[in-house]
Amino acid sequence: MRDVSIIGVGQTAVGEHWDRSLRDLAVEAVGAAREDAGIERVDALLVGNMLSGELAGQENVATLVADACGLLPREALKIEAACASGGAALRSAYLAVAGGAHDYVLAVGVEKMTDFLTDGVTSALALAADSDFEAAHGITFAALNAILMRRYMHEHKARHEDFAPFSVNAHRNAALNPRAMYRQPITVEDFVRSPVVADPINILDSAGISDGAAALLLCPASEARRARRAPVRITGSACATDTLGLAERADPLVWQAVADSARLAFEQARIKPNDVDLFELHDAFTIVSVLSLEACGFADRGSALKLAAEGRIALEGDLPICTLGGLKGRGHPVGASGAYQLVEATLQLRGEAGAAQVKGARIGMAQSVGGSGSVAITHILQV
Amino acid sequence: MRDVSIIGVGQTAVGEHWDRSLRDLAVEAVGAAREDAGIERVDALLVGNMLSGELAGQENVATLVADACGLLPREALKIEAACASGGAALRSAYLAVAGGAHDYVLAVGVEKMTDFLTDGVTSALALAADSDFEAAHGITFAALNAILMRRYMHEHKARHEDFAPFSVNAHRNAALNPRAMYRQPITVEDFVRSPVVADPINILDSAGISDGAAALLLCPASEARRARRAPVRITGSACATDTLGLAERADPLVWQAVADSARLAFEQARIKPNDVDLFELHDAFTIVSVLSLEACGFADRGSALKLAAEGRIALEGDLPICTLGGLKGRGHPVGASGAYQLVEATLQLRGEAGAAQVKGARIGMAQSVGGSGSVAITHILQV
Repeated sequence: MRDVSIIGVGQTAVGEHWDRSLRDLAVEAVGAAREDAGIERVDALLVGNMLSGELAGQENVATLVADACGLLPREALKIEAACASGGAALRSAYLAVAGGAHDYVLAVGVEKMTDFLTDGVTSALALAADSDFEAAHGITFAALNAILMRRYMHEHKARHEDFAPFSVNAHRNAALNPRAMYRQPITVEDFVRSPVVADPINILDSAGISDGAAALLLCPASEARRARRAPVRITGSACATDTLGLAERADPLVWQAVADSARLAFEQARIKPNDVDLFELHDAFTIVSVLSLEACGFADRGSALKLAAEGRIALEGDLPICTLGGLKGRGHPVGASGAYQLVEATLQLRGEAGAAQVKGARIGMAQSVGGSGSVAITHILQV
Repeated sequence: MRDVSIIGVGQTAVGEHWDRSLRDLAVEAVGAAREDAGIERVDALLVGNMLSGELAGQENVATLVADACGLLPREALKIEAACASGGAALRSAYLAVAGGAHDYVLAVGVEKMTDFLTDGVTSALALAADSDFEAAHGITFAALNAILMRRYMHEHKARHEDFAPFSVNAHRNAALNPRAMYRQPITVEDFVRSPVVADPINILDSAGISDGAAALLLCPASEARRARRAPVRITGSACATDTLGLAERADPLVWQAVADSARLAFEQARIKPNDVDLFELHDAFTIVSVLSLEACGFADRGSALKLAAEGRIALEGDLPICTLGGLKGRGHPVGASGAYQLVEATLQLRGEAGAAQVKGARIGMAQSVGGSGSVAITHILQV
């Protein structure tokens, strides 16, 4: 397989885009990525999206984006892996280039959620759970994660406020990202006083519903010098799955798909966890950050809270996470979030992350998780 | 890229499976494909599905199938390209094997529609149209195809009953397929007297709503002799797109995505249209058969009806189409239909199509179309 580089990235601001459609958002992100690369050619398009059918009244969304972006008659397919769809689109684009099917491939993550607030979105998000054995009984994603958080607190004698550093870090970093949705810094006190969503999860444990699109243009590494910007290589790419339902797991606090996809990506990139300079993890809820750090080998079981408490996850720490706000601070347009993570990791490795720049970043990791840890997609990027 | 073979196929009966879920159907088809190949190994799973979110209350459907089929922790992603999703899953599986990312990859098409009859399904199918400029105004897929059929009748001075041979052929072939949904032969008189759906389209112009799953196991051609059955090579695979909305086309009777994907697949396989021994085309409506035959170069513009009238599309003709019933006779579980077409073409090339066997078939073509010709995926299979 060929080496593959990211040669252009683009993104819309994340927020409530009441005046813009899914189509508009995708066009902006794709246009920005092509402009960033300074290369017009696109051979194929992979669109990551989870909820266009449920929330935007649109399937066939890859054709929609290809059409709106002037890419006809190029190949265009939608990839869905719940909240990991953006990462899945990049993985599919990576495979198309690495395998030699296409040379210039666009991966786009796009999601439009705010036309259908609260009830509609909560029900739609539950489609990522097991419809027969979880969602049919009325459990929401916040509730599934609340079960995990409560169990973690019990098993490791943790308090709810011990999770605050993840949210504080995300908001602090988001304040440095002009495209983030929640740019106000928060305190531990804000976190503790935040209204409960599904006990013990509160508002500030939870990433917000939002709209957005992010795009990446890939090509063979051998051709990447043609691009306007410094290329970033994809040195690891992997996807793994675990049971759809939480109740099927021997141990719900072991996120095996996350562990497997990280291990495969590390092996392919020939690196170890402590080689990673920054980690864009899937902080849909603070408990997800904790379980992901432990599953990937960045912290022993029960010790990820300590990593956060010691400030090691901050921009100036030894394992900066969610460097431009993460899902919590930047916002979580579900099918797009994976693409945002990869765009942000690319900007960090190019030294273009502005006030949120991680100094000397050479190896970035981005990981998208779908369902309650039922599918995970991990990428390693390097300069 | 490596040569790729189909080494196992499986399918459920197509019909109204009131007592079985999407999960059950996928498990049966996957189990049958693995049993057919006599090989246990599966490295990755690509699931083609269009409407699981809307109709089955389930996204994250690739994880669901991987979980239910005992494939954890293997990579699993869902591919959506409207009614071409089944073909899209095979294309993605083909690319994964051809490119060297994986060796043994399962492509599964699955759709569960009959729990949500008539209104729900018609609305859901409209998600493949342009939501802002078509579906929002209330137009259904039958109505979009009625516009095409009326225009074709006007332009080529055709009568509605001239389309009858496509439906008669599909039902005649379906009667020979134990897994088909509509196994009763029909006459031209039945066709003419059938109730109107969207003038001039009537019930017997239209493929039926149904449930089903079909699966194919692929591996590198160099390893295909390990399988129990004679392998079938994939010698052409291509996807192309056209405008999402019908109104955007310079000429609505030219299906450019269908033409482009066929041309690319022919070029890759180094064949010409008249080398094809059988063609599993996307007969969601009789007008789709007509426009597909013309776009692919099997008939000149305005002459596909003649091809059918002369019996050339029959099993004993020089271009048998819909040999096991097609979408019309076998049934059209939308995201699964493309996988059924490929399973059926494989059976024909293996000489296992029973009473519907096309004698001496060596080259088969299968083509899935999504939207009103907005995305098309074409495969060429050979023995």
